[in-house]
Amino acid sequence: MAAKIRRRQHGRPLMGNHQRCWIWGRHAVVEMIRAARWPAHEVLLADDLPADEREELSLLLATQSVPVRIEPSAVLARQCGAAGHQGFAAKMEPFPLEDAETGLAGDQPPISLILDSIQDAFNYGAILRSAEALGIGAVYVGRQGQAEVSSQVARSSAGAVNHLRLMESQDLKATLKTLRSRGVQLVAASERGAQSCGVFRFSFPTAIVIGSEGSGIRRELLQLCDCSVAIPLTGQVSSLNAAVAAGIVLYEAARQKKAGPS
Amino acid sequence: MAAKIRRRQHGRPLMGNHQRCWIWGRHAVVEMIRAARWPAHEVLLADDLPADEREELSLLLATQSVPVRIEPSAVLARQCGAAGHQGFAAKMEPFPLEDAETGLAGDQPPISLILDSIQDAFNYGAILRSAEALGIGAVYVGRQGQAEVSSQVARSSAGAVNHLRLMESQDLKATLKTLRSRGVQLVAASERGAQSCGVFRFSFPTAIVIGSEGSGIRRELLQLCDCSVAIPLTGQVSSLNAAVAAGIVLYEAARQKKAGPS
Repeated sequence: MAAKIRRRQHGRPLMGNHQRCWIWGRHAVVEMIRAARWPAHEVLLADDLPADEREELSLLLATQSVPVRIEPSAVLARQCGAAGHQGFAAKMEPFPLEDAETGLAGDQPPISLILDSIQDAFNYGAILRSAEALGIGAVYVGRQGQAEVSSQVARSSAGAVNHLRLMESQDLKATLKTLRSRGVQLVAASERGAQSCGVFRFSFPTAIVIGSEGSGIRRELLQLCDCSVAIPLTGQVSSLNAAVAAGIVLYEAARQKKAGPS
Repeated sequence: MAAKIRRRQHGRPLMGNHQRCWIWGRHAVVEMIRAARWPAHEVLLADDLPADEREELSLLLATQSVPVRIEPSAVLARQCGAAGHQGFAAKMEPFPLEDAETGLAGDQPPISLILDSIQDAFNYGAILRSAEALGIGAVYVGRQGQAEVSSQVARSSAGAVNHLRLMESQDLKATLKTLRSRGVQLVAASERGAQSCGVFRFSFPTAIVIGSEGSGIRRELLQLCDCSVAIPLTGQVSSLNAAVAAGIVLYEAARQKKAGPS
């Protein structure tokens, strides 16, 4: 597993090992504990934090049965591997992805997001951040080639992982079929999309499908979509960063939803 | 300067030293040489590349008076610090930013972009990529707190630095005043923007001002803008990644330009 942790893409470390996933920093740790979604295995607080701040958090953690250790600042830095921990570090349990079935069973939100094999932790986190901030009601991820919710994903999501409805599908093809049978419009976002996303009329509920950075949406999923949209590009560079592209398509769908039927 | 190179944000290295800026990879190096904008100090080609491929590039480099060295693959890896060089590595001269005066003197493109102190190399590159791909005619950067065009910026820009009109302003305040006097609408993109960017009517030519990741647009620049726009967010997370936010506002302006007057 050590080799996996050391693997880097675009100069950014990928964390692929639950046991080693640490969250650090005052805001990140406090938000994660308050949201009470992602269980911490243990929390380390620096011994030079003000006593009242330590006690407040310790009380909250006691209600969640999470062990707390008070340690010198240097121990926190060594454990989480980051000097900027501000006295707060949490060793996390595996992230509790919801089962896709629960999301498919209920009422469908106006906009859902399907991620097919997003591999880069930074992009994954930034996409989740956009989805949460733009009010996307459900995010489905597959199992094949999909990055885990790691420390880097959580950081890059700016805490969105604590608030977003994030579900794991055992079979994205079946998930798409179910969404379709429930009257959800399936829109593939692709560089080779048939229509410009600014001209295309989204109908709601809609689910936007986004593929991996390298190879896009898998053909078997693309074939299930009702239509495909592209961001109109006019420059020499023929594609956008994956997180930027996802942000734009989600923004466009949310903008049309807000504007109402034209 | 060594300390500057080692400085990291969000786990990504920042390169702040011209002498150490290397570009690598077949596509990146060939595109950079063909575009002939950013001069290479020297180019290293691996001795295991096919002879015809080496010769074609060497001929092109001879016309640009760039020295070429044929070296074992391991030498390239050591020099540029990346195993994935594919036999191509180029040591770069400082990036030749145009002077803002040249852009201000001519006809104004429909959409310009002003970057105020973008510090993160990854964000800077992703913003330049979006700007080029979306057809933004001019990008102005200031000198204060602004990241340089480094190896990481070039990579993250997906080669956009070779094609975009990228200009340096000695004084962004003066640049904004000049743009205004030339009839350019100045739009600040800010989390606290007064109007939703999807409702706001851009009038062209327009210049979109984007501030630093941490502290936004400096007050003295904000005060010079005609108006401010925000991306409407409805989630718990109250902001987007800087590159995603920039991409959305540029997309929205480009969409409105294409749609014509409403």
